[in-house]
Amino acid sequence: MRRIMLTVCYDGTDFCGWQKQTGKRSVQQTIEDAVFAVTGERVTVTASGRTDAGVHAKGQTCDFATASDMPADRFAIALSVKLPCDVKVLTSREVGIGFDSRRNAKKKTYVYTMYEGRISVPLYDRYAVMIPKTDLDKMKKAVKEIEGEHDFKCFCATGSTKLRSTVRTVYECKVDRTGDFITITVTGSGFLYNMVRIIAGATVFAGLGKITPEDIAEAIKTGDRKKLGKTMPAKGLTLMKVEYDKTL
Amino acid sequence: MRRIMLTVCYDGTDFCGWQKQTGKRSVQQTIEDAVFAVTGERVTVTASGRTDAGVHAKGQTCDFATASDMPADRFAIALSVKLPCDVKVLTSREVGIGFDSRRNAKKKTYVYTMYEGRISVPLYDRYAVMIPKTDLDKMKKAVKEIEGEHDFKCFCATGSTKLRSTVRTVYECKVDRTGDFITITVTGSGFLYNMVRIIAGATVFAGLGKITPEDIAEAIKTGDRKKLGKTMPAKGLTLMKVEYDKTL
Repeated sequence: MRRIMLTVCYDGTDFCGWQKQTGKRSVQQTIEDAVFAVTGERVTVTASGRTDAGVHAKGQTCDFATASDMPADRFAIALSVKLPCDVKVLTSREVGIGFDSRRNAKKKTYVYTMYEGRISVPLYDRYAVMIPKTDLDKMKKAVKEIEGEHDFKCFCATGSTKLRSTVRTVYECKVDRTGDFITITVTGSGFLYNMVRIIAGATVFAGLGKITPEDIAEAIKTGDRKKLGKTMPAKGLTLMKVEYDKTL
Repeated sequence: MRRIMLTVCYDGTDFCGWQKQTGKRSVQQTIEDAVFAVTGERVTVTASGRTDAGVHAKGQTCDFATASDMPADRFAIALSVKLPCDVKVLTSREVGIGFDSRRNAKKKTYVYTMYEGRISVPLYDRYAVMIPKTDLDKMKKAVKEIEGEHDFKCFCATGSTKLRSTVRTVYECKVDRTGDFITITVTGSGFLYNMVRIIAGATVFAGLGKITPEDIAEAIKTGDRKKLGKTMPAKGLTLMKVEYDKTL
């Protein structure tokens, strides 16, 4: 048996998320069906982490074990031919049989994309969320509070507290304006459920002057989420890349 | 009666194009239905020009006459509330009753968007077209031949030769790389049917080394389209803006 690792891009709009759910269209099931079409094997494809319904991915990673002797780099094209147009395998390579896309992941980068306005722009609206006019400098200051090793339980969706630890390290969190878009780019060791969408909500609240950077620092310290604003919609979120040690 | 001019954005994917066609979903009909919902009037909404099925618009312009006394700038929001998510009115203003979005247009700008690759990227594929690896400098040289006043009949879809004149002025035609995207931006006095998509096809052919800038110059001179390559797909094309004299 060999283990093949894939880099996968998907438009999350019409998926129930990464994870298989009976009677729903998941990215995982769609890729497993493509593997079956190519190799004749019923495999389990495991990702670096689940993405929610509506969340997009530019560079999700996943892996599966196979007895196929197809050259590893051929899987990308062979699977993509079988896949629908909203999910494609961009790269494929062989990794050690013990490799685990989730456990071996060192860093993940998400981007949350927004645009300012009062009327939604159809050409932006599939991958970005409309927000009121904001103060970019205030947003930039706010996200600095997110960086570092913190207990992020206040940035975690309520009801998802079965985790052993809610401590995570955010290596970088930055806000940029590119043309009509405002983006929040977050790189971290890992993310709690809804964490990036809650960070985005707090950053927008800061940009609107509803909270201060100190309020965010306080929320992290006390674990009290009340002031942080809303969880932002899934469609603005894209998993950009997952990084591993080069030696794998 | 007053005349209201609108700036309209639409995602062309699920429309049969701008123009009304019986039994099909057109942008024109969709906007006319919204005007009816807002004013109770059955009006004809006339655009700066038709766009084909699948072509997008960031800043299409159109106008209609109304007896409504609603403040002109309110129409954008009022119509957008009634419109589906893939077409919205971004701005509205009153113009002279004799104003004509098509006849009074001075300049139009289209952008054609592409990305290089062998496997389609779901997050790019709605508004851009995949092309093989190309030589950007060759593309940049090729589009210089397009600029100026020329008889563009070789850049016009066959079967659409009932026009009085196929002479048009292209003020600027440029190729840029932004991140993963290659764009062709064309500003002109007006465009023939399929003209920008044929220009895009010729530019890609030049980038691939299949034709030279001289071949494009020759095609313009002789009117022989044979060498110019294929008409590129509609989904890569976006009407960015339509410009008018400031005095209107």
